[in-house]
Amino acid sequence: MSLHADVMQMKKMLANLDLWIEKAIAHAESKKFDANVLAGARLAPDMYSFSRQVQSACDAAKFVAARLTGSQAPAHPDTETTMTELRERCAKTIAFLDAIPAASFDGSDTREVVVPYLPGLYCLGADYMREQAAPNFYFHVTTAYAILRHNGVDLGKRDLFGALTLHPAK
Amino acid sequence: MSLHADVMQMKKMLANLDLWIEKAIAHAESKKFDANVLAGARLAPDMYSFSRQVQSACDAAKFVAARLTGSQAPAHPDTETTMTELRERCAKTIAFLDAIPAASFDGSDTREVVVPYLPGLYCLGADYMREQAAPNFYFHVTTAYAILRHNGVDLGKRDLFGALTLHPAK
Repeated sequence: MSLHADVMQMKKMLANLDLWIEKAIAHAESKKFDANVLAGARLAPDMYSFSRQVQSACDAAKFVAARLTGSQAPAHPDTETTMTELRERCAKTIAFLDAIPAASFDGSDTREVVVPYLPGLYCLGADYMREQAAPNFYFHVTTAYAILRHNGVDLGKRDLFGALTLHPAK
Repeated sequence: MSLHADVMQMKKMLANLDLWIEKAIAHAESKKFDANVLAGARLAPDMYSFSRQVQSACDAAKFVAARLTGSQAPAHPDTETTMTELRERCAKTIAFLDAIPAASFDGSDTREVVVPYLPGLYCLGADYMREQAAPNFYFHVTTAYAILRHNGVDLGKRDLFGALTLHPAK
């Protein structure tokens, strides 16, 4: 079985995240404050800043795609300090996800995945996606969203989800 | 294909959420404030309170399980006002998820799912889970977590994920 669709869902969420950043920049302009103040915003002093949440969401998607396909994940140093640079980080990650052929994910559900933070252990691809990669990805994406909402950026559920695959009722 | 494992992942996250509430109650006791103040906490005035985040996470899991199996979802009125009542809400939801036989999810990936908020349309079970139910579920669970962290409750990534399915490296 292929987990390609799950990675494409992450790609869609990163495009949504990019849109939230674009809206945050517009919000800052309308309120006449420096949008990059938001890059350092956080919900608690010992939680990641907005920048780090975006970087972590991008990395969660990048690493699950690489590990499920045996691809080399490109290095993306966490050097972004501006909202525009964070949009570029999203774009780079999306480009990497797009460059992996869908067929490379064939059999990824039973692939034995080894992660650096669990030495001496492996997990099966489907468990890795379901129990670690997806919850971690959504954790960082949602916290990024919450930081913007906490700071007055006007986002709603439609921004959260993006486009849905729907069919006309029969 | 069955989406049972995805629903069991939601069940695990609800058990994690229940643990966070337990830790929040202990935190309030140690700081000598009323734990139920946290039930009304929110990250922005136009975002849901902690209570509503917990209720929404529970409902997201309940409704996806019901819709994927053609089961009747039990009514759970949003009457909880205390942290202890929110723990009971998690328990009731977990009990409902547990009561659905795994076999009822056979073929759930291609089941045509109709949701009340998208009239005249349907989505396939796998798309519904991936594009709507899971992102919505993780949105509410993560925001509940963020509200507690914002209010000083000591939670970490281990509390977020819970137990993982791992195997010893060969």
